[in-house]
Formats: sequence, structure tokens, C-alpha cells
Amino acid sequence: MSDLQPVLIAGQWKAAAAADTFQVDNPATKQPLPAQYPISAWQDCDAALDAADEAFQTLSQLPPERIAAFLTRYAELIDANADELCAIANAESGLPVSPRLKDVELPRTSNQLRTAAAAAVERSWKQATIDTKSNIRAYFAPLGPVCVFGPNNFPFAFGGASGGDFAAAIASGNPVIAKANPSCPGTTLALAKLAFQAVQETDLPPATIQLFYHCNYDDGAKLVADPRIGATAYTGSRRAGLVLKEAADKHGKPIYLELSSVNPVVILPGALKERGDKLVDEFTGSCLMGAGQFCTNPGLVLVIDNAESQAFVSDTAAKFAAAPVGTLLTKAVETGLTVALQTLKEAGAEELAGGAAGAGTGYSHANTLLKVDAAKFLTDPLVFQTEAFGNGSLIVVAQDLSEVIAVIDSLEGNLTGCVYSDTQGSDDAAYAQLEPHLRVKVGRLLNDKMPTGVAVSPAMNHGGPFPATGHPAFTAVGIPASLIRFAVLQCFDNVRAARLPAELQDKNPTGKTWRLVDGTWTTGDVAS
Amino acid sequence: MSDLQPVLIAGQWKAAAAADTFQVDNPATKQPLPAQYPISAWQDCDAALDAADEAFQTLSQLPPERIAAFLTRYAELIDANADELCAIANAESGLPVSPRLKDVELPRTSNQLRTAAAAAVERSWKQATIDTKSNIRAYFAPLGPVCVFGPNNFPFAFGGASGGDFAAAIASGNPVIAKANPSCPGTTLALAKLAFQAVQETDLPPATIQLFYHCNYDDGAKLVADPRIGATAYTGSRRAGLVLKEAADKHGKPIYLELSSVNPVVILPGALKERGDKLVDEFTGSCLMGAGQFCTNPGLVLVIDNAESQAFVSDTAAKFAAAPVGTLLTKAVETGLTVALQTLKEAGAEELAGGAAGAGTGYSHANTLLKVDAAKFLTDPLVFQTEAFGNGSLIVVAQDLSEVIAVIDSLEGNLTGCVYSDTQGSDDAAYAQLEPHLRVKVGRLLNDKMPTGVAVSPAMNHGGPFPATGHPAFTAVGIPASLIRFAVLQCFDNVRAARLPAELQDKNPTGKTWRLVDGTWTTGDVAS
Repeated sequence: MSDLQPVLIAGQWKAAAAADTFQVDNPATKQPLPAQYPISAWQDCDAALDAADEAFQTLSQLPPERIAAFLTRYAELIDANADELCAIANAESGLPVSPRLKDVELPRTSNQLRTAAAAAVERSWKQATIDTKSNIRAYFAPLGPVCVFGPNNFPFAFGGASGGDFAAAIASGNPVIAKANPSCPGTTLALAKLAFQAVQETDLPPATIQLFYHCNYDDGAKLVADPRIGATAYTGSRRAGLVLKEAADKHGKPIYLELSSVNPVVILPGALKERGDKLVDEFTGSCLMGAGQFCTNPGLVLVIDNAESQAFVSDTAAKFAAAPVGTLLTKAVETGLTVALQTLKEAGAEELAGGAAGAGTGYSHANTLLKVDAAKFLTDPLVFQTEAFGNGSLIVVAQDLSEVIAVIDSLEGNLTGCVYSDTQGSDDAAYAQLEPHLRVKVGRLLNDKMPTGVAVSPAMNHGGPFPATGHPAFTAVGIPASLIRFAVLQCFDNVRAARLPAELQDKNPTGKTWRLVDGTWTTGDVAS
Repeated sequence: MSDLQPVLIAGQWKAAAAADTFQVDNPATKQPLPAQYPISAWQDCDAALDAADEAFQTLSQLPPERIAAFLTRYAELIDANADELCAIANAESGLPVSPRLKDVELPRTSNQLRTAAAAAVERSWKQATIDTKSNIRAYFAPLGPVCVFGPNNFPFAFGGASGGDFAAAIASGNPVIAKANPSCPGTTLALAKLAFQAVQETDLPPATIQLFYHCNYDDGAKLVADPRIGATAYTGSRRAGLVLKEAADKHGKPIYLELSSVNPVVILPGALKERGDKLVDEFTGSCLMGAGQFCTNPGLVLVIDNAESQAFVSDTAAKFAAAPVGTLLTKAVETGLTVALQTLKEAGAEELAGGAAGAGTGYSHANTLLKVDAAKFLTDPLVFQTEAFGNGSLIVVAQDLSEVIAVIDSLEGNLTGCVYSDTQGSDDAAYAQLEPHLRVKVGRLLNDKMPTGVAVSPAMNHGGPFPATGHPAFTAVGIPASLIRFAVLQCFDNVRAARLPAELQDKNPTGKTWRLVDGTWTTGDVAS
């Protein structure tokens, strides 16, 4: 047990109160990596909650420049340690070092932290609202310690100690208790070390960042419902997420979840006629990139039966069969994908390309393309929208547009939905009919573009109706909007001027903070 | 059964699918009013859901001017029928016609509808966000039919078919299924008739407003969890609210609840020394107004023991004893108040003024002032913060500021919290120590002002941490902020210009709509 890794609690790297331990396989070799990680007992959670509660008292009162200094320094440290971080993440996830980890995900992660730092300093995310006539003023303020459960598919950019939820929670003034994803504990540990170094260098409260790796379901549920917690952000499996949601909901604790999504893509006939070959490449690339392990992976493609769609389907099947097979993140992902594809096939989907688990290096599964008629889909839509997380997708062939719409109507909430249409207008009438049905099912609607890229834009919505996420008004990506999840609306009614927070005083605290003053957005001072 | 009142479903006033019927007592006479109301069976809810779903398809696509025309016409009809509405509400609630119903609540109600109409037309509530570089655009869009459960204490201003939730849901483009509070069904019926008249005159979809009066808990839970529902707004008892919350949460349906609040008021020593007599009047007035039946009624007053606070307590007790006793809304309120006060007394609170139920006209209870030491309070804080809804309040006497803070720390979430301090600065140090503790417990912090007035200001927060409400980032009062509760974030990624909603096209749709374009709030067009 000498290799047992420490947890970070209350500013100390220390031995966990461990109920048990676990190891991680290298998914490319299926061999266990040497490090042992503790499965924390409740004592670890309890100690972290106490420390986070105390850290919050300090952190929430600090000027945002202090928080920004931390985020910026942490970003620098991530960039400076890119090689080491990518090596660890590669060993734990099988994701390629280049371009994926080093050239895409790591820069995105440090840039996210810098964007969050800028948002903290600008303070516009607080949506300060001032009614001078009534002398009532309100803004969004930090809400308390945030527990972040990171997923396994973006060890940096969505990681519990480094990703978008972490950046948003810290930038809005809250300490984070990071729960590593148990498939990338070493990556999360390496990041948390850098985060804690930055905490120390910039003199934030020690418990601004805390880390543990694993716990049982009961302790997880207890954690997200604890009075000392402000909110929870969770990205991961639907089953575990719903356990946490039930516990948090019961105690009135906000919890933001990203659970599952099949991301329907509708390809209208004109688009297939105009650029069918290009669409084969575009869809295959989007679906198989990173072995399809994206929350926005296009898992459901709808076409209308005709010669062009038949060609699209058969050409795509050929591409799937010919494409290299990627490594999956974990044995559990391999098993989950295998089971999900089996479920779809047993329900009646036809396998156009595919095979078995183990078709590539390490944990893997043959690239799989399934097909089903819309009429069949509609006999059991819940089963046919089973998420097959990984390099598989289901094509639904409809007889006409009304069948496409019926399938869309049968879907649960999704993160994204796309429509491809031609550029000459022949698909426009179909688009107009289809759009209202698809629009209400998805958080982000795309045209002529696959959903797998999630830009960090102020206008991004990485969210959507349940069960894609837990609440349809919030986004997990996109700064400053993502910060609001970790905030509470605070109103000051007739509070004396000197006692108001800086953002609500007459003088604009930065000269650059957007505030809604008597119905007008302005960066100016309140006229006295 | 000839007097059985109809429900309004799918544009028809019709006989309910009634499982049972109920009547309402006039609380001032304790005599039943003649009308009979149905307790709807599930068929009514089901039919209303179908009709609402259909109405939503139309309503969500209409120009906001059409919705505003409805809200404005409805406001006119309310004003024009003020006498009749007030007579019905008075008979059902015991609230005085003047000034309360006719001069305060009714004008507030029609003004709220007009403010909501203006917000709908301005469209700034949608928070349109445009990222021109990525061509990603997002805004808040209506989320679907809203079920509004109104409370009994504001039959107009918070009523299911007329109040703030109704106005916000409609203004944001959603049809409303109004569930009357079973203590004011006739008032809600009279209002729904006017609303439906306005719907017809302004040619909105008939099911824009629907009405039923009562159902059992199971059907209520089924309703808020139904796939056809967008969200629910509930103001009422904690017990029933938590039943609905559990059902809605389980199905991922947003529910906004206002449940309970004791609204702590801290009166610091300097303020008592400076203006103790004035504070006796101010507190007594706020606490006994409307027989104390406000969600923001000051139910918990904290003072530090000294000669001035002793005088404050005894003078207040004398005022309570001498003040007229108001009529309570219902027998259930009378019983609830009696039981809550008994709970507090049994736990150890001393009765300084009080008596029994029936001390006034009709349903009533003697004005009651209780007192307890902070040390005693802290032995069982959950019991001592039992909400005594009505004309009763608990004074907590602390030995020093640290005891005041300990009591504040022991509180659940509240809608409001107030601090009174002197104008010369002698209380400033205490205020600074106390404020962070109180701030995190309440949605609205007041200085030198009782919490019972809830202005319809864009900066108002009528919300707060659980269990005051269900989510601390949302407010039930304050336009446009209250509209966001009934909205979903929708992102458009690379969507062709002509297919964008008006609010996200380059041209500002009104020339007055605030939009966040590339980080700048503007009412201008996007430069092309």
C-alpha cells in the first residue's frame, strides 16, 4: 500500500480515510497502472465540507482580482506542465497525446481558466441590477462550496479539478471539492497539485481546491445534500447522476447534471443530393473521432428513404468498416457500448458495419453503424434512443418528413440537434416544418455542422431539456453564463450605500462592469 | 348540485370530471358561501394538458405584441370590474375591501400585468447573446405550459389566474393551467372569466388560460411531472409544496416553489436607543397588518438584552394586546396558527401577549407576542423557527451579538432578513460582523425597513435559499427577472440568418431590445 495516493483536504496532502482502494487500467494495454487510489470513507467528505465551508467565508469576500490571479497562474502551470499532464492522461484514458490532448484539450483547458479569470475581473456575470427610484439593488453572489464530479471523456477540459465547472465555480467565488473520475485519478491528482500550488502562490484559502477520488453511492448522495454544500456539478452516467439528483433535490440543493444525449442529426434530401459524399465524410469523422466518446456525438441520424440516402447509408457503412478503430476510455465504456449496441440490435436495428468488442488496440469495439426504419423506431422509441457511448451510431430511415417529425417528437431531451439542408432552397419548406419539433428537444440547434465541437462562446449552450441535463435554463459551457449556476440572487432593499457590495454602489467598480441601471445596461456610474 | 361551478378547459366552460365537491366558508361569518366547486379527477388535468400543449405551439410563435395586447386588455378588465372582484374576494378571504383589496392589491395586480406586457414587447428578458465571430447565438425561449398553484393570502396579486406567476408565464410565451387556491375559488373563477374574455377579444389560443379548483395530492403530483408540462409555480404550504417538488424533480421538470419563511429582523442596540418607540410602532404595524398573513411577515425578532430592548419588548406586547384582532383567511389558517404558537410555547417560549383562537371576528386568533432567550432558542432551533403564519411573532433575546449570530447561523433559508441600526454609527461594527451571516440566509436583505412590502422592481428578489424557495437563483417578483423561470436557454449554432428568431437576427427587432453582442450590451443592430 506504499503507492496509495493522498487526498487533498483542508490544505493538506494526506492519507485518506479509506474504505477501500482501487487501481486504473491503461486502456491501450489493459494492464493496471501502478498507483493505488483510496475510496474515501465519509470522514474525508466530512472534513472536506468543513474546510470548504471555512474557505468559502474568505473566498467569497475577496476581490475578484485575487481569484483571477489564481486562475491565471493555474493556467500558466498547466501550460508549463503540458508534457507530463498529457503523458498521465494518455496512460489513463488512451486518448492520443497529439493532437487530441496536447494540441486541443489542454490549450482549451488553460484558455477556459483565463476566460473565467477575465469574467471574474469584469464582474458583468453578476448581472448587477439597480433600481434607483426604489433603492433596491440585486446581483448574483457566490452560493457556497461546489462539488464537481468530472467525467472520464475530457480529463482536462471537464475534469473536476481543472475543467469548465471548476473554472466557473471558482470564478464566481466558490471553493471546489473535486471528485476525480475514477478512470482518471492520476490526471486529476496531477492537475490538483498544480491548482494547489497556484492556490499557495496566490495566497487563496488553502481549501479553495480539495480532492478525493472515489466514494460509495451513499456517501456521494450524502455529500451533495449536505447543508455545507452550495451546489453540485456532475457530468457522467445517467444512473449515478440520478442517484445524486434525488438526494440533492430532496434537500433543496442545486445540482447541475449532464447525463445523456443521442444528438439527433437530420439530413434532408436536398443536402444529400447536393453534397452526399461530403456528408459521408463529415458524419463519419464526427462520429468516430476520439472513438465517438463525446457527449455531443451524433448517435442518431435521420434520413428520408431515396436513392441518395441509400447511397449515403451504404457509403457511410463502408467508411465505418474501413476506418481505424479507436481505443475506448475504460473497460466499462467497452462493456457499456457493447451492451447498448446489443440492445439496439435486439430491438430490431440492422448492423451495417460492426463487429465485436476488442476490435482495436486495448479496450475497443468495432466501428458500428446500425439502421432501423422509422416505423420500427416508433414502436419502441425509448429503447431505440439508448445512448451507445462510443464509436457507434444509429441511422433511422423514414418514408417521409412526417415520419422524421414523429421520430423527433418521440425523443427525450438532448444537448444538440442538427439539420443539414441544401443551399438552393429545396429543403427550406421541410426545415420550416421540422424546426419547431426539433427546437424544443435540444439545447443547441445546428445547421450544416456536426455537433461535436463545443466552442467556449458566451452564446454557447451546453445544456438542454431533461434528461440531457437537470435544468433547461443553464449551460455548462460558455462564460459568463456558466457562472450563474454557482450563484444565488441577492437583493439589497434600502441598504445604506456604504454597506452595499462594490458592484451595487453608485460608482461602477471597474468602469467596465455591465450593470442594468433603471432598465438600461451601462458600464457607467449611477448618476447621483 | 345545480350551483356546481364549471372548470375552464380547452376554451370551454364545462362541468368538471369531478371526484367530489367543496364549498368555502366566509371567514368573517364562518358560514358557507353558496357556490359548490368540483374537486377535479385526473381526466380534467389530462384534458387541460392536451389543450395547453396545443396552445403552446401557437402561443410560442406569436409576436410578443399579441401577448402584450392580451395582458393589457386583461388588466383593463380587472380595473373595470374592481368592485365585483373585491366583493367576491372579501367574502372568501375576509381581507378588507378598502384599502387592502381595492386600493392596494387590485391595482398592483393590473399594474403587474401591464409591466409584464411591456417586458414582453421590449424582449430584453430573453437576454439575446450574439457571438458574431463564431456565429453562435442564444436566447431564452418559452419552455411550455406552466401550471400555477396560487396561495390564499393574495387572491389577486399572486392568484393562479392573475398574479405574478401568471403574468410572467404568459409574458414569456407560455399558456397557464391555473389551479385555484381552494380557499378562493370564486375569486379565481371571476378573474379567469375576465382573462378568458381577454383571450377571446385578442384572439389568443383558447387554452392560453385554463382553470380548475382542486385535485387530490396524487393527481397534483402527476400533473407537475407530466411530459406535457413545461414548469410549475407553487406558492403555499410547505407540506403540499414538497410533495409536488418531489414529483417534478423526479421527472426533471422545473418547479419554482415558495414555501415558508420567518423573516428574521435584528434590531441593534443603537437603533433601540435612538428610536425605540418608533420601532415598536413599525414592527407592530408590519406584524399585524392583514392579520400578519404575508409570506414576508416578520416572525422572528432578535434583540440584545438591555433596558431599551426590555422596554421595546414590553411596549410591543402592550401594543399587540391593544391592537384590533384581524380576521384570518380560513379555518385552516386559524388552526395552523394556533398549533404553531402552541408548538413554540411548549418548546419554552413565553407568551407576552396572546390568547386563544376566536378572539376577533370570524376565524381569528388573539395577537400573540412570544419571547424566548437565545440560549433556549439554540437548544432546538428547528422548532423555534416554526412559521406561525398569521398575527404572531417570536422575540429572541440574546445576551450579546455572538448569540444573535449563533441564532442567525441556526436558521433555514428565508425570503428576507432585516437589520435596524442607529444613524450615528454606534451599530456599524455590529452590522459588519452580523451581515455575512444573515446575507447567506436570505434572498432580500433590508436596512431600517420592515419586509412586508414587496415592490415590483426589476431589482426585487422575492426568493431565497431552500426552504424559503426551491432554487436560490430565481425570483417570483420583479419583472423581467421573474420571466426567466418559465424559459429555456436555446442556442443557435451556425443557423442560417433567415432561420433565426427575430431577436437573434442582425437587425434589432425593436430598436429597443437589449442584447449582448460580442460582450457589449446594446440596443443597436449587429454591424454587418
